[in-house]
Amino acid sequence: MRISRYFLPVLRETPKEAEIVSHQLMLRTGMVKQASAGIYSWLPLGFRVLKKIEQVVREEQNRSGAIEVLMPTIQSADLWRQSGRYDDYGKEMLRLKDRHERDMLYGPTNEELITEIFRDGVKSYKDLPRNLYHIQWKFRDEVRPRFGVMRGREFLMKDAYSFDLTADAARQSYNRMFVAYLRTFARLGLKSIPMAADTGPIGGDLSHEFIILADTGESQVYCHADLVQTTVPGADTDFDADLSPLIARFTSDYAATDEKHDAARFEKEVPVDKRISARGIEVGHIFFFGTKYSDPMNCRVQGPDGKMVAVQMGSYGIGVSRLAGAIIEASHDKDGCIWPVPVAPFELGLINLKAGDKETDGACDTLCERFANAGIDYLYDDTDERAGGKFATMDLIGLPYQVIVGPKSLKNGEIEIKERRTGMRQTLPLEGAVSQLVGAIRSARQLA
Amino acid sequence: MRISRYFLPVLRETPKEAEIVSHQLMLRTGMVKQASAGIYSWLPLGFRVLKKIEQVVREEQNRSGAIEVLMPTIQSADLWRQSGRYDDYGKEMLRLKDRHERDMLYGPTNEELITEIFRDGVKSYKDLPRNLYHIQWKFRDEVRPRFGVMRGREFLMKDAYSFDLTADAARQSYNRMFVAYLRTFARLGLKSIPMAADTGPIGGDLSHEFIILADTGESQVYCHADLVQTTVPGADTDFDADLSPLIARFTSDYAATDEKHDAARFEKEVPVDKRISARGIEVGHIFFFGTKYSDPMNCRVQGPDGKMVAVQMGSYGIGVSRLAGAIIEASHDKDGCIWPVPVAPFELGLINLKAGDKETDGACDTLCERFANAGIDYLYDDTDERAGGKFATMDLIGLPYQVIVGPKSLKNGEIEIKERRTGMRQTLPLEGAVSQLVGAIRSARQLA
Repeated sequence: MRISRYFLPVLRETPKEAEIVSHQLMLRTGMVKQASAGIYSWLPLGFRVLKKIEQVVREEQNRSGAIEVLMPTIQSADLWRQSGRYDDYGKEMLRLKDRHERDMLYGPTNEELITEIFRDGVKSYKDLPRNLYHIQWKFRDEVRPRFGVMRGREFLMKDAYSFDLTADAARQSYNRMFVAYLRTFARLGLKSIPMAADTGPIGGDLSHEFIILADTGESQVYCHADLVQTTVPGADTDFDADLSPLIARFTSDYAATDEKHDAARFEKEVPVDKRISARGIEVGHIFFFGTKYSDPMNCRVQGPDGKMVAVQMGSYGIGVSRLAGAIIEASHDKDGCIWPVPVAPFELGLINLKAGDKETDGACDTLCERFANAGIDYLYDDTDERAGGKFATMDLIGLPYQVIVGPKSLKNGEIEIKERRTGMRQTLPLEGAVSQLVGAIRSARQLA
Repeated sequence: MRISRYFLPVLRETPKEAEIVSHQLMLRTGMVKQASAGIYSWLPLGFRVLKKIEQVVREEQNRSGAIEVLMPTIQSADLWRQSGRYDDYGKEMLRLKDRHERDMLYGPTNEELITEIFRDGVKSYKDLPRNLYHIQWKFRDEVRPRFGVMRGREFLMKDAYSFDLTADAARQSYNRMFVAYLRTFARLGLKSIPMAADTGPIGGDLSHEFIILADTGESQVYCHADLVQTTVPGADTDFDADLSPLIARFTSDYAATDEKHDAARFEKEVPVDKRISARGIEVGHIFFFGTKYSDPMNCRVQGPDGKMVAVQMGSYGIGVSRLAGAIIEASHDKDGCIWPVPVAPFELGLINLKAGDKETDGACDTLCERFANAGIDYLYDDTDERAGGKFATMDLIGLPYQVIVGPKSLKNGEIEIKERRTGMRQTLPLEGAVSQLVGAIRSARQLA
């Protein structure tokens, strides 16, 4: 993509309303633009990040055996009256009436709707277990939306719902999602720590939040330092096998959010030099709640003994749009974003230091062709802005690699490459630079 | 994908509420399920079709130089008051109030929001032309939603918006979308005919609808028969060149929807044996409306002479969810859907006639591996249903190819393949069948 044909409305000043670094950087880089309070448009750069996050989430859901569907944003209030949540849910639920004065709502979550779908589609225990998920916009009418996409009102969420015959089988479904979440966050370049958590309005008695540590986190969390280093399950994990030994590696050490924290237990179980007390950002939340929805909504299947039995359910959420902010919180410096390759809006930025010059233009065209053929996403700064501005913009938007083509080095057939994270620069012959970059990017994509 | 692990709630009976064949088949095949009047959940099979259509639309938008963004579903009423459309738009607009009693709405289209984004992001004629598009759920509160996803209330639309300095340049942008639309529909297996159309609430004086002919179409259309045969521009079309000669091939012959129809002109210009009078389904609609939004919303750029000038705009819609229904209307028979390869939920269906038998299971496992390695999407019926039921389901869901593995032919190392569209069957050695199928599917993907 050439910047001269792109839409990249970068801001020079940090907008005053943005309190945290991810919000500041997402506005400055033109990733998003506020449409109304807590509601954002995703501009081209941000849209690319969002899509890449979504795709990683999808791949790991599919790997675990979950099946993708897509439920609508607008739901009927009657459905929520069946579960009893229509009245329970407070002002966070966006309620509305259609032209026929029917009560409707903008879904904040989908337990009711998926239970209805499953109830009407499955009759026998032979069709269990199943896990259905979707990636869809949700709305929660926060009193005071803030922190950009980190606590917006309209947000993109992946929510999965598991259906099992027995509580034991449901725990196995819970464990599958547990592993899928560990892998998802690792692929996004994040170190996530599962922590025992409260269940809130979703219900149930077993729940974990997946937390990443960041100074700007919304809540206080406590955990054993070893958890940060525990190796994430590989891509070859057998999701049909018993995953509980694997889960135990992540749940036997102490880890809890503020609301579940037990100071006495923390001090007893965790050696002083291993005690982490830090701020955390919630990026995922999983729940097992048994028959909380299947009972009132009459979602039953015929068991092996011929008797009808209410299905055991769990639900599993990932804040997809929030993750764009969370990744920036975890990966930036004073100059801007530092995108991990798997979610970078472009994998490299090409800077032509003398756009309009026959030699540099020709070399850049050759590079574009090489990158395109190698399947590398690149952004080419072919504008006539001065060099300082180009460098600053590239650092700000934080593509993992920069390729700098100037008339001077080009006389020797050389170009410069820079790794954004380390700032390391190298001057290399053109073809050598290409093969080094392609190799580095390809291997970074496959992380985890 | 194995059916024993999939969610495919096929219905035996045709639901009474469904009046047209696409609605009937989408319900019977378990592609969608109604959530409320005119609002649907996309179940796994339907979701796959929707995603494939979306991806073709996206690829052709990108090819034409349009840039993808994503605007939110909920918009502020104030924005629509700037253009004057908040009061103009009738009861089709879903209006609501948030918890702070602010007037909001569920976007039926996005001219206002994109104009605001563009106005705040671009200052100079040097940044023109641009075309920004998104693929997002819209809501239009139809009085009487019907025909399933063909006239739903919540629907997925691709809407693009072009920005140019002059009306001439804007016509070039209009032509780019015109070509992109011709290519998009052709890739979806549809013969679309551009027809002069009214502009309605969008405004402007230049507009075309893209119509496909189908007996169940919602409106009467008239055109020259040659238009159905006109060759669609190739993938190598240069979108920077003057496209008007190309467009002329599609606009010089008579074609009009009912509202624009001129019977006298039709009879004068079109020979009797070339007069098509038929029912049509609108799948796309493009508009050029100049400064209708940029004027009231003050979206101006600095021109080459230093003066500020309101940008010339157009907008371009494709009904992505509606297309799933339209494709079925255009491609089905008494037994069910007949999916073109590029949008088929799976490219082939594998039927094991004796699931549980060591030989057929082994052959099917081998086939699955071959198809997976070749990158073919397959659905494997590994259930213990009887053969007749399996055949009927495969015909109903209409995957382009079926592969049938039974113990009898397998004794000779042979399997059967069936092409859904023609019903043609062949018995072939296993490896020969695989290479024939892989070749046929790969070439069908690349259509247009």
